[in-house]
Amino acid sequence: MYEGVVQDLIDELGRLPGIGPKSAQRIAFHLLQAEETDVRRLADVLVQVKARVKFCSICFNVSEEETCRICRDPRRDPTVLCVVEEYKDVVAVERTREFKGRYHVLGGAISPIDGIGPDQLRIRELMTRLGDGTVTELILATDPNLEGEATATYLTRLLKDFDLTVTRLASGLPVGGDLEYADEVTLGRALAGRRSAR
Amino acid sequence: MYEGVVQDLIDELGRLPGIGPKSAQRIAFHLLQAEETDVRRLADVLVQVKARVKFCSICFNVSEEETCRICRDPRRDPTVLCVVEEYKDVVAVERTREFKGRYHVLGGAISPIDGIGPDQLRIRELMTRLGDGTVTELILATDPNLEGEATATYLTRLLKDFDLTVTRLASGLPVGGDLEYADEVTLGRALAGRRSAR
Repeated sequence: MYEGVVQDLIDELGRLPGIGPKSAQRIAFHLLQAEETDVRRLADVLVQVKARVKFCSICFNVSEEETCRICRDPRRDPTVLCVVEEYKDVVAVERTREFKGRYHVLGGAISPIDGIGPDQLRIRELMTRLGDGTVTELILATDPNLEGEATATYLTRLLKDFDLTVTRLASGLPVGGDLEYADEVTLGRALAGRRSAR
Repeated sequence: MYEGVVQDLIDELGRLPGIGPKSAQRIAFHLLQAEETDVRRLADVLVQVKARVKFCSICFNVSEEETCRICRDPRRDPTVLCVVEEYKDVVAVERTREFKGRYHVLGGAISPIDGIGPDQLRIRELMTRLGDGTVTELILATDPNLEGEATATYLTRLLKDFDLTVTRLASGLPVGGDLEYADEVTLGRALAGRRSAR
């Protein structure tokens, strides 16, 4: 319907997650009217991101160098390892400023329906890291959903003969949430995990 | 919070219309994991769109050549001109397959609050086009909102001494809509514009 290259742009934008055909059109028309330098800056950063962003050779976090900022930081405790699914989970945990250990990014969660089994995740690399005995506590910080739970259960079983403290993030009510609106599974976990108030 | 170039990408994506910080993050993470060729294709089409897309020198429609497909098409009736605000409105009218005339794209609508007056639109160019007397009917197909109505009213007044049929798109209930949910202005217009049922 649109002139050749405009349609190409709409098609490419429409492939991005969360961008439907209407949004793709809207963005394309915005770009048609935008300054050429602004559009070129976006194009450049797209190329740069693929050229410069690598994955840390130790923890598989996103990094512009061979190893990531966290793995290079000598102040980070090498005995505590937080296992997460994705890079964005590293950022989420970092944002809390509560964690001083290091990470291991699995690259996803076990999901047979999507064809993702343990071999598609960086579990073998995790085992290799645990081999030298530096790590004494492993925090399984996978997502609190079906796939995340399956992954945590799988890892717990795999690690049962290791001399390691293996923990999971607490389940319960979100802070600032409303008891009335909590789903029954969350509320059930909050009850089961109740703590002394004094 | 994110590694340098990743944050740059999130910032650039966040400048696009309808993309909030969360969507920008989501798209950036998607691109981090996407194939390099796919990302490069998006970057290329962004550069291409700015390099190749021009505006038709006759009607100001988007075009990859000096004049657009519609202005070049000898089967399109040159005596009927449909005046629209934007390129996307050309596409919307074309999609109906009801219109066989030509277009004039104003490049927006009169909106004093946004600093857009008649001089910022291609109204002078419209007058020049009407000068040779080829056009006998002008359809004002501006948006049915405050700015579109103001623009149509302005043009109607400007054209009152021209030997031209000037029409506006019909207002009324949208097809497939629900009478109960129609706003009172739309329903009022539908009433005022009622037609004989036989």
